[in-house]
Order: sequence, then structure tokens, then C-alpha cells
Amino acid sequence: MSAYRSIEWRDGSLRMLDQRRLPQETVYLDINDYREVAAAIREMVIRGAPAVGAAAAYGLALAARYSQARDAEGVRADLETAADVLRQARPTAVNLFWAIDRVLVRAAHSNLDSLEAVRNVTLAEAEAIAAEDVRTNRQIGLNALSLIPDRANIIHHCNTGSLATVDYGTALGIIRTAHEQGKQVHAYLDETRPRLQGARLSAWELIQLNIPHTVIVDGASGHFMRTMGMDLCVVGCDRVAANGDTANKIGTYNLALVAQAHSVPFYVAAPTSTIDMSISRGDEIEIEERPAWEITHVEDWQVTPDDASVANPAFDITPARYITAIISEVGIAYPPYEDSLAELMARVE
Amino acid sequence: MSAYRSIEWRDGSLRMLDQRRLPQETVYLDINDYREVAAAIREMVIRGAPAVGAAAAYGLALAARYSQARDAEGVRADLETAADVLRQARPTAVNLFWAIDRVLVRAAHSNLDSLEAVRNVTLAEAEAIAAEDVRTNRQIGLNALSLIPDRANIIHHCNTGSLATVDYGTALGIIRTAHEQGKQVHAYLDETRPRLQGARLSAWELIQLNIPHTVIVDGASGHFMRTMGMDLCVVGCDRVAANGDTANKIGTYNLALVAQAHSVPFYVAAPTSTIDMSISRGDEIEIEERPAWEITHVEDWQVTPDDASVANPAFDITPARYITAIISEVGIAYPPYEDSLAELMARVE
Repeated sequence: MSAYRSIEWRDGSLRMLDQRRLPQETVYLDINDYREVAAAIREMVIRGAPAVGAAAAYGLALAARYSQARDAEGVRADLETAADVLRQARPTAVNLFWAIDRVLVRAAHSNLDSLEAVRNVTLAEAEAIAAEDVRTNRQIGLNALSLIPDRANIIHHCNTGSLATVDYGTALGIIRTAHEQGKQVHAYLDETRPRLQGARLSAWELIQLNIPHTVIVDGASGHFMRTMGMDLCVVGCDRVAANGDTANKIGTYNLALVAQAHSVPFYVAAPTSTIDMSISRGDEIEIEERPAWEITHVEDWQVTPDDASVANPAFDITPARYITAIISEVGIAYPPYEDSLAELMARVE
Repeated sequence: MSAYRSIEWRDGSLRMLDQRRLPQETVYLDINDYREVAAAIREMVIRGAPAVGAAAAYGLALAARYSQARDAEGVRADLETAADVLRQARPTAVNLFWAIDRVLVRAAHSNLDSLEAVRNVTLAEAEAIAAEDVRTNRQIGLNALSLIPDRANIIHHCNTGSLATVDYGTALGIIRTAHEQGKQVHAYLDETRPRLQGARLSAWELIQLNIPHTVIVDGASGHFMRTMGMDLCVVGCDRVAANGDTANKIGTYNLALVAQAHSVPFYVAAPTSTIDMSISRGDEIEIEERPAWEITHVEDWQVTPDDASVANPAFDITPARYITAIISEVGIAYPPYEDSLAELMARVE
């Protein structure tokens, strides 16, 4: 696994690597209050759909642990309150909702008749979600192997590595598995404005893994496809609708269109936890609008003039028709996705 | 005209607005040495193909003025030396070469038999290039009017306004003319990584002109086309080949592909000085690779980890087939561009 871990339960508190400060500083935060977990998600201390899902589950474990309730019913009520706060932290990533619901369902079980029993099962479920995430990512990497040529230039958007998950990574995990299996991969990393997760986080991870990489500005992907040839694109996702439409970090849709124009395969790495069969189309997914300062400022430096207007959607929707395949831990889905995703989801226990 | 001027001849020296420091600071540099003009172009004190062309012409005027030569032949030799230095400042923009050649041809005229006569004609030609640039831009804006709906959402890349020219602007000049003529235009400004000319310079210009605008990250153009509808894109250019292939700031090609996918018209504003009939195709245009620090750092802040690899092509080529029309001061060219550009260029005296 990795030398660092995005999130970890330690001695009754939740330790998070503060991703806002990477790669310049490696700072861990120890959190004991679920409201601070929600704030950490909002402020992007932790980001990436799978990592956010695990964080929310651990947030509930904190709510249970530090609940002032006196019995099982009381702590369940506190869990509902905490769930409401956590759900509001980031609306687009479905893993947040998925992980919260999973913990709540377990905590609601009628055979849990003591405060302590609810606390224990809440933490156990959060730990299970975290452990499964690592296994899921490794399996996604293995499942994707047949799609990766032995020598491959791969364009990647945002950060989808260990930092975006509990460990190993989804789309970056695919690149990592291919590298570990001896394929000659070179990752072209979109820097990914406005938060520069590609330039900061993906580059940092690939350096530690000794995987050849080149950071490029988001606008350069077409230039490199046209002049150098690229073999594939691979991205993560925050939510996949039942028809295959995919919400992911802003810039993903542009990359998909550019890939399509060059007949470059465009793959989405999607743990089944990000596939939302309750939503039929991408346009039903709420797109989070993030604060203007992410565009008007870079660190302390003001980029734009004082009165500039900006718009900062954090995600976009890539319609299914631009996606070559969706790679999950239980298999690969190809168009038409209405059928193939339903078939994949039927394999999930 | 504008309250500021990118470049101006004043009392025997060349005054430039230092665009690296806008919009936070308004600093003018007074330059007396052509080598400093070359450095200013290289370091992007001044940028934008038309402005760079005028700067190079004025650079020759400085070379003539401060030449130690004793006769017309001597100053002509010094001009050739200066021209060689200036030509190396930025390889992609053709205006640099065009303006230098234009001044050299005038200075070479056999009826100029004194040092003073060569000096005078050199400065006069530089001043003529600058004055023509302003007229050219205004005419481009007027020529484009018929292409702009009365209400229009327009995506724009980089900076192509007064700052990128001597005054008024090319693509941004089109938006300005439409606004001045009473059309309801709203400009969506690609921030334009890595140098952020859209967020810094285009936003600054549009605020001063009271033109509604929204700064977006480069990766968001497809999202806005898909969800809001955009009426057109308009960009400038650094060089147009005889077949219509266009070199412009990195990210232009991606925008053109994204526009094509949404059937959004994609227009290039091109003074005839940027149309290079000596080059048949875009792939013959040299693409400048700029320093890595433009991507690894934003101002003083280091974005990437220490050992990150980056690639920083400053321009890309948009193949002609993605360009709806090329708008010059002598008319509008439509595909097939081999014919229409030749016809346009025949109108240039």
C-alpha cells in the first residue's frame, strides 16, 4: 500500500492528511467531532468520492462515540442529526450518501439494544467501508489491465489516487496496476484547475511510485493527442447515473470531447458505490457551485481584478455516449449502459 | 480608445505597460535598448501577436536611434543585428517577423542616404504599424458585427484586447464593438492557464469597458455550452497558415473541439498581418515551449512537488476544419480557406 493514508481511525479519533497543504507540507489533523468532518469535506481537507464516503462513515462513528445519549435510541437520533450535517458537505459525490445510508441501516438493526452496541457497529461498518474501498480499488486496477496497451500514454484528470480514496486509488490505481504489472505507462496529468489536484496530488503520488508522468495544463490535452498520440484517458467519478452519464471534476467533459475527436478511448473508473441506479440521467445530479475565491485567488495571490465575476461549478456531467467503458470492481460495463450497469449492479451482494 | 496603452513611443524611448503585474499593479517600463525589447517579449511584459509586432518594430526604431554607426550603411547593419535578436524572442507569432521585415524593407530603400534618414524612416514605419493596428482592430470589430446575435453568450480565450494589441483588440475588440453597437453580449472568459491572461487581463479590460463577463476555468467551457447554451466562441491568433490552420494560445484547440461538439460557431479574429501565406499548413508552425516554472509555480507559490515533470507548449494548432470563419480587417474568410484567404490577401495593398 502507500506510505501515506488519506484517512485512518486511530485511538478513538479520525486522522486525516490535510490535502490542501500537499505537496509542500505533510500535516495530519486529528478530528473528534463529526461537524469537523463535514467542514473538512467542504473545505477539501479530504476529497475524492471514495475518500469522502469513508470520511462520512467515520464521521458517524465519531458522532456515536461522542454522543451524550443514554441508550440505543438516543444515539440513533444523534446519528440522524449527524447524517443530516454530513450529507450537506458535498452534494455531487454519491459515496457520501451511500456510506451514510449504509452505516445508518446497520445502526438501525433491531438486535442492537444498547448504546455500546450501536457505537460498536457504527465504527465497525465505517472500518468495513474503508477496508472494502482498498480491495475495490485493487480489483478495478486488475479488471482494467486488459484495456491498457503494453506501452501507453495515458491522460488522467484530477486526483484519483490513494489520496482520493482510502488507499490505492481508482483511475490512478489503474495506472498504478498497469505499471506494477510491467507495462510501460506514461501518465499525462491534467493539472486540474481550479484546485490543481493533478499538479499537486497526482504528481506527488506518481513520484513516490516512480511512475513516469508529465503535468500539463487542462487546455493542452488536445495538443498532445494531436501531436504525440495518446492511447487512452482514464478518470474517476463522483456519481454515475443508471444510463452511464457521469459526474466528475470540472474539465472531465472537455477531456471526453477532446478524446472523442481523436478516437482516443475514454474510460471511467467507478467503484459500484459511485453508481447511482436511483438516478436515470446525469442532468438529475446536482452540481456543486464552489466559492469564487478558488478562481480569483491562487493561495494568497489575487489573480483577477477586484470586481471580476466568476462561475465555479466544481463538477460537470459527461454524457454516456462519450464514455468507452466504465470499469468497476465487479466488471467492465460497455454501452448501452442501461443494460450493462444494471447487470453489474446485480453482481453486488 | 482605452485609458491605457500597451505600448507607446514617448520622447525617444519606448513605454510599455508591464502586463505581468496587471491587474494588481499598473507599472510602465521605459525602454531604450532593443535587447530589452526582446527580453520584454520573451518574459511577457508585452504579449499578444499584434502588440509583439509593434514592439519589435519599435525595437528597431530604438536600435536605429541609439546606433553608434556613422552612416546609413552602418545603421542598416545595426538594424540587421537587432532584427536577428528580436526575431528570436517568440517564434510562433508571425507578426514579429512581419513587422521586422516591413521596417527593414523601408530602411533599405536606396534613396535613404544618411544616418538620420534611416533613423527617421525606421521610427516612422514603427509608428505607422502601431497606428494601422488600431484601425485594423476597429475594422475587424465592425466586420464581425453581422456574425454576432443581438443577445449573445460568447466564450473567449486568453487576452486579445487593447493589451494584446496597440489598442482596441482583435477578438475582444469584436466583443467590444458588439457591445458598443448595443448588442447584449456576455463574455465567458477562459482564465487561460498557465499565464492566466483571461482571468487577469481580459477581465480587467471588460470591467473598465462595463461589459458583462464571467471568468471560468479552461476545463469548464463544455459544461457551460451544454448547460447554458453559448452562441459563439471568438479567439485571436498568432499565425494563420494558408490553409486556415491557426496557431494560438494553448487551450484554443480544445475550445474549438468542444465548440464543434456543441455546434457552436468558432471564429478566429485575424489581422492580415497574422496570416502567413508562406506556410501551407499549421504543422509547419514552430510551437514555442515555455519555461516549466509557468506551470510549477503560480507567483511565488510552488504548485507541484519538487521532482515533477511538466510540459509547457505555449501554443497549439487548431486545424482549419474546426474554424467557422476567419475575420480580418479586409473581410471574412469562410472554408475552403485556401481560396478565401488568398482572396482576402489580394485585397491588402
